[in-house]
Amino acid sequence: MKTLETIYEHRSIRKFTNEPVSDDMLDKILKASFRGSTTGNMQVYSIIVTREPENKKAILPFHFNQAMVSEAPVVLTFNADFNRFNLWCEQRKAKPGYDNFLSFLTASIDAVIAAQNAALAAEALGLGICYLGTTIYMADELIKFFELPKGVVPITTLVVGHPAEKPPLVDRLPAEGIVHYEKYRQFTPEDIDNIYREKEALEQTKQLIKENGTETLAQIFTEKRYTKDVNLTFSKKLLEVLEKQGFMNQ
Amino acid sequence: MKTLETIYEHRSIRKFTNEPVSDDMLDKILKASFRGSTTGNMQVYSIIVTREPENKKAILPFHFNQAMVSEAPVVLTFNADFNRFNLWCEQRKAKPGYDNFLSFLTASIDAVIAAQNAALAAEALGLGICYLGTTIYMADELIKFFELPKGVVPITTLVVGHPAEKPPLVDRLPAEGIVHYEKYRQFTPEDIDNIYREKEALEQTKQLIKENGTETLAQIFTEKRYTKDVNLTFSKKLLEVLEKQGFMNQ
Repeated sequence: MKTLETIYEHRSIRKFTNEPVSDDMLDKILKASFRGSTTGNMQVYSIIVTREPENKKAILPFHFNQAMVSEAPVVLTFNADFNRFNLWCEQRKAKPGYDNFLSFLTASIDAVIAAQNAALAAEALGLGICYLGTTIYMADELIKFFELPKGVVPITTLVVGHPAEKPPLVDRLPAEGIVHYEKYRQFTPEDIDNIYREKEALEQTKQLIKENGTETLAQIFTEKRYTKDVNLTFSKKLLEVLEKQGFMNQ
Repeated sequence: MKTLETIYEHRSIRKFTNEPVSDDMLDKILKASFRGSTTGNMQVYSIIVTREPENKKAILPFHFNQAMVSEAPVVLTFNADFNRFNLWCEQRKAKPGYDNFLSFLTASIDAVIAAQNAALAAEALGLGICYLGTTIYMADELIKFFELPKGVVPITTLVVGHPAEKPPLVDRLPAEGIVHYEKYRQFTPEDIDNIYREKEALEQTKQLIKENGTETLAQIFTEKRYTKDVNLTFSKKLLEVLEKQGFMNQ
């Protein structure tokens, strides 16, 4: 499949057939991760491959029991990872100074680039993927389960498998909502109305509002899906994880 | 170009011809960003396109004067961005609760997925790209220059243009250094030696060590390229940026 086609045709897949992902496919996906850009060629990320049914079942609650986690043949967890690099430094008479927030964010960027390369490689091979945003909510539990040492924090997860569905492409905001030329152009109320007009007019949006019993689509996000209370709880937990994993030296 | 080929053939390009990137190409690259996965379809990222020579010159020092910044025809800065989403919420009787660290990291992941889609789209079109890790070092200066409002933090940058070089593929560690099956397998000293053996044996590594006057390759990282002092300075600055941009409510 051609690159632009693969990218433009992406849809998240949440239902998979029983067909396993072959070792050859998995190797091609992992190789794609390896070739992604990485800061100073330090490769400060790692990937946990989960294929054993009991392990998929064990991490299922950490991903809020989304069925695709145990149903997908392969689950890939991408970590910000300075552990291997730090061990190497110490073994080579070099004192690592990567126990800080800047290093954490650097490693997180490496991890996400690797993840997106894996996602596109999987899709190019005819597989389907879905990202799990729950990874950073439940980082602490994943650290315990995967036995991640200091210097390692899970950032994102992909479920991968042969698709058993082909949902339509999801709507996206017009470019004006995303792209700014030369300087950031702050939005006027009219801009916001224009940017969200099409999305708010979708039949599916009206249906969602009805189901959720809210007045607006935005309220579904703030009151149901991503509420302030929940965000603050998991935010605090995540900062504690960074502290515990040795990324908050100041 | 086929997807896997595009991914596997990536090399960072730092020298560009004078040929501009056409509007059509830029649109295709931006469209690639738009189609990337995004948390809850919130699209909490934004992209600043820098093409004006005086603006490229202005941001050059923020990227530590790397010549490619002013020489590349297009510079794309990817931001974690809750500003537009927050404005929409407020305009739709919904109280946004996204002024916290969890939301920042969520938006950062969106931004990097968008960036890597843009990178691969550019490469598929025959262009070259290079990531600039300096973005998070100098986020504060970029915020001022681009006039980024609260809720927006620059995360990474791509320079894009027609390549005037084709460097060899860079070395990568063997898979054992990156991939863990089922559980994280902590490395023994022998593992570390094995993982780094090939890299350390490269002629280029020996040359680097000679030039830098260090005893080991690792020391080039800890003593020259990414030193603890510099990391801590920029780490502190970055956390202040998060605070200032409204992502550290607890």
